[in-house]
Amino acid sequence: MRMVDLISKKRNGDELTKQEIDFVIKGYTNGDIPDYQMSAFAMAIYFQDMTTSERVHLTMAMVESGDQIDLSDIEGIKVDKHSTGGVGDTTTLILAPLVASVGVPVAKMSGRGLGHTGGTVDKLESIKGFEVELDSEKFNELVNKNKVAVVGQSGNLTPADKKLYGLRDVTGTVNSIPLIASSIMSKKIASGADAIVLDVKIGSGAFMKNLEDAKELAQAMVQIGNGAGRNTIAVISDMNQPLGFAIGNALEVKEAIDTLRGNGPADLHELCLTLGSQMVYLAGKAKTIEEAREKLENVIETGAAIEKFKTFITSQGGDASVVDDPSKLPTAAYTFEVKVKEDGFVSEIIADEIGIAASILGAGRTTKDSVIDLAVGIMLNKKVGEKVSTGDTLATIHSNQELVTDVIEKVYNSYKISKKVVEPNPLVYDIIHD
Amino acid sequence: MRMVDLISKKRNGDELTKQEIDFVIKGYTNGDIPDYQMSAFAMAIYFQDMTTSERVHLTMAMVESGDQIDLSDIEGIKVDKHSTGGVGDTTTLILAPLVASVGVPVAKMSGRGLGHTGGTVDKLESIKGFEVELDSEKFNELVNKNKVAVVGQSGNLTPADKKLYGLRDVTGTVNSIPLIASSIMSKKIASGADAIVLDVKIGSGAFMKNLEDAKELAQAMVQIGNGAGRNTIAVISDMNQPLGFAIGNALEVKEAIDTLRGNGPADLHELCLTLGSQMVYLAGKAKTIEEAREKLENVIETGAAIEKFKTFITSQGGDASVVDDPSKLPTAAYTFEVKVKEDGFVSEIIADEIGIAASILGAGRTTKDSVIDLAVGIMLNKKVGEKVSTGDTLATIHSNQELVTDVIEKVYNSYKISKKVVEPNPLVYDIIHD
Repeated sequence: MRMVDLISKKRNGDELTKQEIDFVIKGYTNGDIPDYQMSAFAMAIYFQDMTTSERVHLTMAMVESGDQIDLSDIEGIKVDKHSTGGVGDTTTLILAPLVASVGVPVAKMSGRGLGHTGGTVDKLESIKGFEVELDSEKFNELVNKNKVAVVGQSGNLTPADKKLYGLRDVTGTVNSIPLIASSIMSKKIASGADAIVLDVKIGSGAFMKNLEDAKELAQAMVQIGNGAGRNTIAVISDMNQPLGFAIGNALEVKEAIDTLRGNGPADLHELCLTLGSQMVYLAGKAKTIEEAREKLENVIETGAAIEKFKTFITSQGGDASVVDDPSKLPTAAYTFEVKVKEDGFVSEIIADEIGIAASILGAGRTTKDSVIDLAVGIMLNKKVGEKVSTGDTLATIHSNQELVTDVIEKVYNSYKISKKVVEPNPLVYDIIHD
Repeated sequence: MRMVDLISKKRNGDELTKQEIDFVIKGYTNGDIPDYQMSAFAMAIYFQDMTTSERVHLTMAMVESGDQIDLSDIEGIKVDKHSTGGVGDTTTLILAPLVASVGVPVAKMSGRGLGHTGGTVDKLESIKGFEVELDSEKFNELVNKNKVAVVGQSGNLTPADKKLYGLRDVTGTVNSIPLIASSIMSKKIASGADAIVLDVKIGSGAFMKNLEDAKELAQAMVQIGNGAGRNTIAVISDMNQPLGFAIGNALEVKEAIDTLRGNGPADLHELCLTLGSQMVYLAGKAKTIEEAREKLENVIETGAAIEKFKTFITSQGGDASVVDDPSKLPTAAYTFEVKVKEDGFVSEIIADEIGIAASILGAGRTTKDSVIDLAVGIMLNKKVGEKVSTGDTLATIHSNQELVTDVIEKVYNSYKISKKVVEPNPLVYDIIHD
C-alpha cells in the first residue's frame, strides 16, 4: 500500500477501506507517512468528504493510535457528555453531581485545554483542597462508591488526532465535518465512554454558525458513535449568547451551586435538564426521557443533587463548606459595571467576544503554560430579549486589575441593542438520534 | 501574509493576487513555507482550479525563482518548441536544422531527463565528437552565425517548479491542469523563448488520453504564454502509436537524416512541417502559415535543410560525415524480428509499452545516473491501418543483449491487431491559438 495511491483514491471520491484508513493513521502516528502527504489527504477529505463507514474507521484508528481508558471496573453504563465549545458553559460541573444523584456513573476525565475560561478541572480547583490527580484504582473506587469522580487527563490518548489537529490548523483543513467529528468522537471513545451525549452549539460564540451546519456535525458524530457501538445522541443548543450569567472559573462554580439548588439561570437550568435526561436515559436509569427528567427535577427539589456535589468535593479532598458559603471561593479585588447607553432590547450577546474579554482578565489560558486567575470573570446582568434603559447595568466585571477600560469596552460592544422587541432564540433547536 | 490564509482562500475558490502567489512561491523556494502547507495548497488548486491570471502569476513566480537565460544577444525572434511527451519523438532533432535553414534562430537548451529514450542531447551525442557543453558566448555566437545550436541544460532554472513537481508526485496532485501548464511554461520562459510552439500529444502513449483534456491543457498553456507576453500556439497531435518508425537514440538520428532529406516516415514528416510552419510564422519569417510551409518544403527539396544539419554538427565538433554515411552511428550487435501471428489490420500500437520495451533494451534512463545505450532501440515496420499477414515483420529490435524474449513479447503485445479494416486517427487534431 502506498500513501500516494490512497490520497489519489480519496481525491477521486472513492471510498477507503478499514485497512487503508488504518494504514494511513498508523503510518502517520509512527512517522512513516510525512506531514506533506497527510495534509494533501486532509484537503482531499475536505473536498470529497467521507462516508459514514470511513468516518467510523478513521475514528477507531485514532482511538487505537494511543492509550484507551478501561472503565470496565466501574459498574453500570458510563455516559460521557461533550460540548462542542461555548462560553460560560458550566453544564459539566452541574451535570456530574446531578446525574450521579440518580445513579448514573460519571467517570469524568477532563483537561486543562486552552479557552476563554479554564476547563472543568480548573474550575474545581477553585475549591480549596480539591485534588484531581487520582490513580485509576482510586478513581474507579470513587465512581463505584459515589457515582461521580473527576480526574485530570493523563496517558497518551489519541496521539494521531493531536498530530493531525496541529497539522489541520496550519493547512486550511480545520473546517471539515468528517475531520471535526472523528476528532471529537475519538477522544470520547478513547476515554472509555459506553454512551455519549453531545451538546452541539450554534451561533456567533460557537464553531457552527447555523442550524444546517450544526445538524450536519451532530449527525456525523451520532452516526460515528452508533457505528462504533456507543449509543450517542446530540442536542443542538443556542450560543447566540453565553449560557447562564457567569463567565469565569469560581463564578461558574458558584453558579453551578445555585443551579444544583434549583436557583440557577433559567437557560442553564433548562439545558442541564435536557442534557441530563438524555444521559439518564442512555444509562438505562429511566425508561423514557420524561421519566429521566422527573427524576432530575426531583433530586434538585429534595436537595439530593446538592448533597451529591458536597460528597463529590469531600471525596476528592475539597472543602465542601464552599457549597453553603460560596464567599470562600476565590474573589476578585475589583468590580466594574458595564452600563447601558441607549434604551432598547438586548438582541444578541456575542459570546465569543465576552469569552475573549474574560480571557483578557485572566480567566482563560492563551498558551499551554499560562497561569489562570480563578477569581476573575464576567457576570451578565441582562440577557437576550430583556428591555434595557440607559444607566442599567448590563454586566459586572470581576477583576484583579484596577484598570480594565478595554474589557469594559469589549463587554459593552458584545451587547447588541435593538430598538424593537426581540424574541429570544430557542434554547434547544433539535435532538439528533441518528 | 500567512500561508494558512492563502490555502484557505484558494480552498474557498477565491482568486489569489500576484502578490499572494509571489509570497507562496518565494516562501516555498527558500524553505519558509513547509512542504505540508504546499501540498495542501496544491490539493486545493486541484479542486478549485486557477484563473488565467493566477496561472500567469504562478508561472512567472516560478520563472523568477531561479536563473533566467538571456538570449538578447541573439538576433531575431527565438522560438522554442515543446512536446508534452511521446515515444519516438524525433521532431526536435529535425526541426532545429529545418527551421534554422529558413532563418529562424534556434537556441535550444536540452536536458538529459528520464524517459523511454534519451533526450535531444543524448541523441546528438551518438554523433562522434558532438559537444553540447558550450559557454553562453560561444552558444550565442553559433546561433547568430548558423541560426542553430544546442546546449546542455545548465544553471538553476525554475527551482520552485522542481521542488513542487517532486512534492506533487507523492501527494496525488500531479494531474492538475493549472499545475501541469505552469510547470511546462515556466521552464520554456526561463529558457529565454520569445515565442513557443507546443506539441500536445493525445493517446495511450501520452499524458492526455483524450481530445477534451488535451485541448484544455493546450489552451491553458497558450493562455499562460500569451498572458506572459510570449506568442504561443499549440498543435494537438496523435500518440495512439509512436511517431515515425524509430525508437532509440542513434536510430532516431538516422531517421532525422532521412526526414531532412525528404525520405522520412510520412507522419513524422507531416508533423515536422506542421510544427515547423508555426515556428517560422511566429518567428516572423513568413506572413502566413502556408508561406512558411512552402519555405520548409523548399529547403528540404533543395538540400538546404540537410546541409544546415551538417553545418550544425560540424560547428559543435561533431563528425558530419555520419549524415552521408549513417552506418558510422552506433550500431547494436543483434537484431530480432517481431512477427505477426494472426492476419488482420494494425489498430493501435501502445506507444507507452513500446517506449518501456526500448527502455528495457537500455535506450532510456530509469534513474538520473543510468548509462544509456545509444545504439539500441526498436524499428517499427508496420503502423496503424496497415494490413498484416502471419509471418510478416511487425518490428525489428536492435539490442546489445543476446536474449530479449521479454522485449519481443512486450513489442508484440503493444500491437493491437483487428480483424476489420482500420481507419487511422488524424495526425493533427487541432491547432490552438488562444
